[in-house]
Formats: sequence, C-alpha cells, structure tokens
Amino acid sequence: MYKNLFDTKLSIIQSPMAGIQDNALAIAVCKSGGLGSLACGMLSIDDIVKEIKLIKEATDNPFNLNFFCHTHFNYDKEHHLKWQTLLEPYFTEFGIKCESIPDGAKRVPFNHDIADSIEPFKPQFISFHYGLPDKELLSRVKGWGSKIVSSATTVDEALWLESKGIDGIIAQGLEAGGHRGMFLSEDITTQIGLSALLPQIVNKVKVPVIATGGISDNYSIQAALLLGADAVQIGTTYMLCSEAKTSQLHRLALKNIKSQHTAITNLFTGRPARGIVNRVMKELGYIHSLVPNFPYAAIEIGQLRAYSEKLGSDDFSPLWSGQNTSGCKEISAEELTLQLTTDYR
Amino acid sequence: MYKNLFDTKLSIIQSPMAGIQDNALAIAVCKSGGLGSLACGMLSIDDIVKEIKLIKEATDNPFNLNFFCHTHFNYDKEHHLKWQTLLEPYFTEFGIKCESIPDGAKRVPFNHDIADSIEPFKPQFISFHYGLPDKELLSRVKGWGSKIVSSATTVDEALWLESKGIDGIIAQGLEAGGHRGMFLSEDITTQIGLSALLPQIVNKVKVPVIATGGISDNYSIQAALLLGADAVQIGTTYMLCSEAKTSQLHRLALKNIKSQHTAITNLFTGRPARGIVNRVMKELGYIHSLVPNFPYAAIEIGQLRAYSEKLGSDDFSPLWSGQNTSGCKEISAEELTLQLTTDYR
Repeated sequence: MYKNLFDTKLSIIQSPMAGIQDNALAIAVCKSGGLGSLACGMLSIDDIVKEIKLIKEATDNPFNLNFFCHTHFNYDKEHHLKWQTLLEPYFTEFGIKCESIPDGAKRVPFNHDIADSIEPFKPQFISFHYGLPDKELLSRVKGWGSKIVSSATTVDEALWLESKGIDGIIAQGLEAGGHRGMFLSEDITTQIGLSALLPQIVNKVKVPVIATGGISDNYSIQAALLLGADAVQIGTTYMLCSEAKTSQLHRLALKNIKSQHTAITNLFTGRPARGIVNRVMKELGYIHSLVPNFPYAAIEIGQLRAYSEKLGSDDFSPLWSGQNTSGCKEISAEELTLQLTTDYR
Repeated sequence: MYKNLFDTKLSIIQSPMAGIQDNALAIAVCKSGGLGSLACGMLSIDDIVKEIKLIKEATDNPFNLNFFCHTHFNYDKEHHLKWQTLLEPYFTEFGIKCESIPDGAKRVPFNHDIADSIEPFKPQFISFHYGLPDKELLSRVKGWGSKIVSSATTVDEALWLESKGIDGIIAQGLEAGGHRGMFLSEDITTQIGLSALLPQIVNKVKVPVIATGGISDNYSIQAALLLGADAVQIGTTYMLCSEAKTSQLHRLALKNIKSQHTAITNLFTGRPARGIVNRVMKELGYIHSLVPNFPYAAIEIGQLRAYSEKLGSDDFSPLWSGQNTSGCKEISAEELTLQLTTDYR
C-alpha cells in the first residue's frame, strides 16, 4: 500500500532504545503512522511476550522487534578485578563495597529460546544490532515471513549484511545516540557521518536503506530521503516524549546545554555508545582499554550509577544521546511524529 | 543577481586545499559558475600575489582567498627533542639524520604584511580557518568591502563567529577532509556530523551557512540546501581533477579501497586533520600527545615523508581526504562542477 519497506504510512521508524522505552512509545509511534519498535535486548523472555501482547492489544499496525546479536563472551573474573581496581577510588569515595555478580548484566544475544517465545506472534519486522544471528537462527526467523534489517556503520558492514540476505539496512551515521552497531571493526575511527555514509551505502547495495543519525525534523527527513533513504530511524528526538521511560536525570541532561557535547564511550557496557559527556567519562577517558567485555562492564559501573543517582547525580549514568537534541520536545510521541512530518521553519 | 551569499551562478564553493591546489583549480571552478578558492596558508606573499594575478587574468568571476589564523606559537626546542626521540626508529630505519629547522614549517597566520599584499586586489571573499584574525586585522579587511566567512565545527563556534560580525559561516561536518577548523576546543569528540551540525547552526544564527563534509553529488548538494544551507563547500570530490595538484601517491590512495578508512590525526602538523589511514598513523596512534604545536610537527615528519615518497611509499604522507570519496572523478574540475549540478542516479 505504501511505498517503503515497512509499508507504513510515514517513512519513520522509532529507534529501539533499551532501558529507555517499553510498549508505550512503540504504540504511540505505530498509532501515528510510523513504525514503533520494541527494544528487547535487556528484557526477559516473559517481559518480551508481555510487551508484545500489550502492543498488539493497542494497535493493529505493524511494529518492529529489536534484538542484540553480539558475540557472547563469558564473564572473565581476572579482567573484572583490573576494572574494579580502576574504579576502586569511586567506591571508596561513596563508602560502598563493589560486588561483581556475573549475571548482573542483562543483555543476552538473540537465541532459540527467544525465537520460541516470539514465533507465535509471527513478527512482521525484526531489527538486529551488532550484525546478525547465525545462519540457522536467521533462516528460522525468515521462515516466519519476518522482514529482517540490521545496522551498518560502514560500507563494508552494509555489503556484509546484504550478502546474508537481509531485507533492509540501517545506515547508522556516527551522529546517532546509544550503541554503535559496528561489528566488523572495533576501531571507532571507522565510524562515518551520515552525510558521507548514506550516499555510499545507497550506491553500493540493492536493498532499501534506512537512515539514522542526527535526524530531528521534517527537513532532515526529507534530506535523507533525497539522499536515497527508504525511511529514517529516529531515536534521540523521541527521548523527552511522555511515553518514553527516559529517567528524570537523563531528561534534565538532554535539556541542558551540556547535551551539546556527546562522545562515544565504552565505559558503561564495554561496547562503544554515544552519550552526553559526564564525570566518569571525563575522568577515565571516553574509551578505556581495561573495560570488560560487553555487557559485563555494566556490573560494576552500574553500582556506582545506582548510588549516585539516588543522590540526584548523573556522574556515572549512561546519558545516551545523539549529536542533535534540537528536535526533542516534551509532548506525546504521537504529536511529535505528526510534527516531524509537517513542521516548517 | 544570484541568491547566495557569494552571488555565484552555482551554490558551490571549492574548498581551499593548501598543498593540493593552485590557481588552476580555482580558475576552473570559477569559470564553471562556482566560487573557486585559493588556499594561501602555505604560500609566500610573493606567491599569493602571483596566484591572484593568474586568477584575475583568467576570469572576471569572483573568487575566494583562504588564510589560516591560528594562534602563533614559537618553536619549542625541548618539545621537538621528545618528538624526535619518538620518531628516531623511523630515521634509523631509513638511515637518515633528522634535522629540526625552526622555519621548516610553512604555515603563517594571516597578518598585516599579507593584508598589505592583497589589499590592492580588494578581494571580494576571504575565508579563514581556525577562528578569525584579531579585531584590528578583521576590521581592516572588512574595510575593503571583502565579505568574510570562517569555519565552525560546533554550535558554540558558529555563535562566536557570528558575534564577531562575520558574513557567513562554514558548517564543517566531521566528515570533511583536511584540517578541522576547530578553535574553541581541542577535544575532537566535540566534532559533529554534518546531518546534526548543519540544522543546529542554521537554527541558531542569522547569517548564511555554507555546508561542508561528505558532499559528493547533486543529491547531497540538494540535501544540504534543504537543511537550510546557503551553499556547499566541496573539497575531496575535486581532488582527482586534472587541475588539482594532488600528488600521484595521494591520487592512488584516494582511488584505493583504503580511502574508506580515514581518521582525524594530529601527527602531520600538530593540528587535527582528516586523512586516509597509513603506516605512521597506525603505528603511533592517530592523536599523539607528544606532537609539537602547529605547524612545527611537519618539520620532522616531513623529512620522513620526503624520503619515503621518493621510494614510492605513502607511509608518512598526509593523505588528506574526507569520509566520502565516491564522487571523485579523473576529469576536469569544470566538467565535474557541471556534473555536480546535473547528475542523477
């Protein structure tokens, strides 16, 4: 009916944002004609099912389920001891004791158990972050008729994804907030601004390309479509919406002038992600070589975060944000989606 | 007559590229209806005058003169000794002796002597990099009726430039090749992709904004104009043109798949600049804390460059390039400019 890959009225996908949203944001975007997404990467299987049911009760429109598919590493005790030594001065400052519990980090890669739980819903769209699951799992999901997309941060990654039979590619410009989808390199200098990345991917692949990174208004949507995008994915711009579960501290940071300075950091999870610069990023450096593997880094720093957030401080919080917060508005996501398609200067 | 700040037929400015161009490229772009630029930052006063005369003989169209206005540091012998120690293994490998000659680096900030030499030509447009010259020099230049633009890499820099009475602002997205125009911060994580930078600057300033970074074809020009740009500045895309003075080694690198990976490095001059990743960047790291001040870093590494280039190697060459070489063509700059305004997928 409509002309984009997702067959939605609007060429807008809401970025899945783990820890910052649940069904409410997805429903609001679906209802307004975009494609709402549910970030499943930090949810238990029970919660995934519960959230899907809530979305399906609220809307008949299609929606997107997002999963991580990072390489699974085991918890490495020795590595964590080094990391704890580095963080020790903060624990001392707070007068708290660090406890390193291997299952304290919640991000699990997509697996057959998860597939079992979502199969009954025959999801129309699934987006992956950090590459793709293995061939068998991917075939299984495609067997349901689900359309599959994943993020590419370089031309190489786009070509790799296309070679695996994917239905669409999310060109993630380095302006984007949250975790970089990068999976063929760990060197963050390989990351490319959307104005350079999008045209190159569009020229190299045959599947539809979804643009993300810095998109904040109708003009930037139109510009991305002009550059050959099939649709755009928008995250940061939704973060102040009433349906988002963005914390109060995070909301304050997004509205503050300090949100002008974000950086890609691996401190919070072990994988590079863009967030607003805060105390721990300034003091340890944005990228640190001693950080444990994803997602275990969150175990220790999460305790510092919990303690300092109780005191009203965001010094140890992952303040995920893209490089452009100018489109953030404290309104409903339905209203925002409408404005995104109609606003003028 | 035309509607952009520069009153040119096309809304295209050729990026000034010190060391990579002379009057020939500027003339070609001027003749095709864009605004050609002469990069004066590495030229002697005699050469600046000679080049201007050649441009004026060839075309009556307006052109742009570009100057650096970095803070001048004195040559610091002790700092250089540390830098030489770091580079010593390379000198040993080549069997050559390092000579550190204070006046071996050619980049001089804009000054009254330069102003004296260009005043007779009453240049219509002058663009600066690294901020602006002091108030008196700026007033002097403005007194000739010259229109002044300079690069902003953050919203803060754009507001600073506007407060100084500038006529236009070049929004330099981090995709751009060559030196970052940054002047209010030395932290390269402050640098922003064009898709996030351009709309924010357009929304915050009243003067015309020129977009640069990753622009390679008619679509990216149209997209930038849609985002509110008055014109675009294009550099990398011109680097294979017959009128450019790009070296053969540099041309080969731009045409090679390795041009997909550029990084911002301070190794070659002491200031951060984007170039294709090569041996010295990989081995020393892209940003090194021991690098001497701009432009003196070039003294020592320039000797390694000269030696290895003679052997046909680009291991120590600054291979300036933006993050998008897909628009580079080995044709004349006149033809390329025409194609930039008419090409379709």
